[in-house]
Amino acid sequence: MSKYIFYAPNPTSENRLSEEESFHASRVLRLKSGDPIYLLDGKGAKYAAILTTVDPKNTSFGKLSLVEKQEKIPYQIHIYVAPTKQMERMEWMVEKCCEFGIHGIHFFTSRNSERKEIKLNRLEKIAVAALKQSKNLFLPEITPILPLNSYLETLKDSPLTQILFAHISDPPVKTLSKQLRLNQSYHILIGPEGDFSPDESGELILRHYLPFSLGKSILRTETACLAATLGVHIAHE
Amino acid sequence: MSKYIFYAPNPTSENRLSEEESFHASRVLRLKSGDPIYLLDGKGAKYAAILTTVDPKNTSFGKLSLVEKQEKIPYQIHIYVAPTKQMERMEWMVEKCCEFGIHGIHFFTSRNSERKEIKLNRLEKIAVAALKQSKNLFLPEITPILPLNSYLETLKDSPLTQILFAHISDPPVKTLSKQLRLNQSYHILIGPEGDFSPDESGELILRHYLPFSLGKSILRTETACLAATLGVHIAHE
Repeated sequence: MSKYIFYAPNPTSENRLSEEESFHASRVLRLKSGDPIYLLDGKGAKYAAILTTVDPKNTSFGKLSLVEKQEKIPYQIHIYVAPTKQMERMEWMVEKCCEFGIHGIHFFTSRNSERKEIKLNRLEKIAVAALKQSKNLFLPEITPILPLNSYLETLKDSPLTQILFAHISDPPVKTLSKQLRLNQSYHILIGPEGDFSPDESGELILRHYLPFSLGKSILRTETACLAATLGVHIAHE
Repeated sequence: MSKYIFYAPNPTSENRLSEEESFHASRVLRLKSGDPIYLLDGKGAKYAAILTTVDPKNTSFGKLSLVEKQEKIPYQIHIYVAPTKQMERMEWMVEKCCEFGIHGIHFFTSRNSERKEIKLNRLEKIAVAALKQSKNLFLPEITPILPLNSYLETLKDSPLTQILFAHISDPPVKTLSKQLRLNQSYHILIGPEGDFSPDESGELILRHYLPFSLGKSILRTETACLAATLGVHIAHE
């Protein structure tokens, strides 16, 4: 059995690794043609394969065989978050949410958000690394930063979709576990470090999005993301 | 109202800040005598006070008045963990567990643990910073690293105490939420990056500690700590 795992989104139609994974196989791990590897497609499948040519830019493989196929869970988790000033906190959030299992991480700018750009490529690498480490076979989509409003225009509640947002108030609103209907596609909005502005919160309520509390503590933005993600999983145990 | 919060473990008997907090008040925040501050004792109380002398080594305060007293929650969470090779991961764990609320973080060495020492002082600073940020008024005890065995000799199950340990097996054991009795003092052991050795797991089972699963993913050590901490809080919502 190989201990080397690579990410290859379409291994059945394209028998080679990306330039980045090729470099890793060749220069970092110093693998050779004939070495056994594993491939993850990020869509639930894990394959065994054999390296045919090893090259830092173009490594190919053959003898593909499916070794594991994970079933999709009956719910989906999408987190929408205003990135924190310190990008490191978002990187850590992506790693942890991928360990727990998540379907989408979407970034927005809003009134009180301080960061207007993110390095998507770096976050995707972290997500792939978390996938390899956690034995979770689904890679989330991570989407570029957009204004909050452009998400609000597309996010609509439906019988199979719940839109929720973290809300700090006194007295607190219901906790996440008490607001969830089971087995939905959850779209969960987490405010920036300075929280949603009163106008924004008003807009979310007007759209009938469900506010929820994450308990008595004031959580940092990245902590709120993973508390919500883990909270959904625990509710389905 | 002041926005400056300091940690002072015994403000009613000792009317001055530690050297570290004195330096912060004087050199970083450049506060002056007469300025209003808040004090957290880490034991559930928040006070308002007025700075009387400001000095980088010895800052004192007066006119103490209690502004908030948090009730203890009816359960306690103690995490026991073998520190990860990268100390940064333990620092994150301490920050996040303090945001969620935790009573004790205890480090051990075991068969597969790679790190034999920790910087307690640095972790305590992170815990104090998380306290100031999260509006949680209880500071956890963080204890020095000890061999796993010395904890096992003192940890005993009782009608008000539950000892649990994270356990990866196929098929998985029950999840944490299904293993918990409510309103206990929980002592939760999390294995090192290479997990508990078979001997160690055998010993934990022999002592009737309860194994629990954290779901299908393989979580990193620091992620398991915060998943267990948050899991206990969610079970009590």
